Amino acid sequence: MAKTPPTRFTPPPNLKPVQKGLVVINTGDGKGKSTAGFGMMLRAWGRGMSTMAVQFIKSEKSKYGEQMAAEKLGIEVIPSGRGFTWTSKDLSEDEAMARHGWEIAREKIDSGDYSLILLDEITYPVSFGWIDVKEVVEVLKNKPEMVHVVLTGRDAEPELVEIADLVTEMKTIKHPYGDQGIPAQKGIEF
Amino acid sequence: MAKTPPTRFTPPPNLKPVQKGLVVINTGDGKGKSTAGFGMMLRAWGRGMSTMAVQFIKSEKSKYGEQMAAEKLGIEVIPSGRGFTWTSKDLSEDEAMARHGWEIAREKIDSGDYSLILLDEITYPVSFGWIDVKEVVEVLKNKPEMVHVVLTGRDAEPELVEIADLVTEMKTIKHPYGDQGIPAQKGIEF
Repeated sequence: MAKTPPTRFTPPPNLKPVQKGLVVINTGDGKGKSTAGFGMMLRAWGRGMSTMAVQFIKSEKSKYGEQMAAEKLGIEVIPSGRGFTWTSKDLSEDEAMARHGWEIAREKIDSGDYSLILLDEITYPVSFGWIDVKEVVEVLKNKPEMVHVVLTGRDAEPELVEIADLVTEMKTIKHPYGDQGIPAQKGIEF
Repeated sequence: MAKTPPTRFTPPPNLKPVQKGLVVINTGDGKGKSTAGFGMMLRAWGRGMSTMAVQFIKSEKSKYGEQMAAEKLGIEVIPSGRGFTWTSKDLSEDEAMARHGWEIAREKIDSGDYSLILLDEITYPVSFGWIDVKEVVEVLKNKPEMVHVVLTGRDAEPELVEIADLVTEMKTIKHPYGDQGIPAQKGIEF
């Protein structure tokens, strides 16, 4: 089963050695969208770059592994949601919180104080119409040049994909929920 | 563009509240495979779980953002490769290093001392035939029950997918190399 080592990672010859803040989207129905976002924050933190996150869906009260880690690292993670909206009875409150989270995110991006900002699960409030996609596009288009912004969540709007530099779809090939009835594992999935 | 909040995250009613060490594979041609792996390590670390990584392709000499972060966190990241093999002239040395990395990984898995072990980019030496896929399958099948093992890299062998609990494909939708000629960004991609 020996294969020839790949050559596909060779950078194209016309590659300019520029540094530029990227707009990155991790979307799709699979795992790893937020996790890769937090991995990017970890990497940035490892290099001494300033980084922060706004979480749009995860609860203000719950403690997730990534929040516990961020706290230990001194990285600011601001939860703007109050848990999974689809179990909420009063959606208007969720909407207000999402909009509040977006105001914070916008301010953080515009400040230019951060090298990398994660907008975790922002696609949901955008899809629901709680945050205007045009507003998000406007902020990302006019962001300080060196700021990387990472957006995660399923069903990223075409307008967001359009202006993004790097878009990856995380696709489920096999999942323990469906196949084996194994629940989410602490430290792995949350 | 308002949509109904999704209900698809509702766990199935027959879900058993078991904890079990998962075999997780992040594969595909897209970004985020290793990054999500490191994000999982961060999450585990945040919860006080023990974690380590063996990196099969990245150089022993280069310093990557994730290695710098791991060092700061006191997480062991063992580089077994010596950089991108496809620029190497002497493949046999790469093969020996990959096999050495696998011996370390196997020992770490079998020890049961870790909650989560990342075998970063292991699919490459497996695809090249340097590490026997049957051996990897055997070790994963007989691993201590509570150890999570995360494997990353393109073109995961069907034998690995077969025994994995959770498999995600990272698929490129848009990439700054191809579309804009922007090189990899420090702190973002490495």
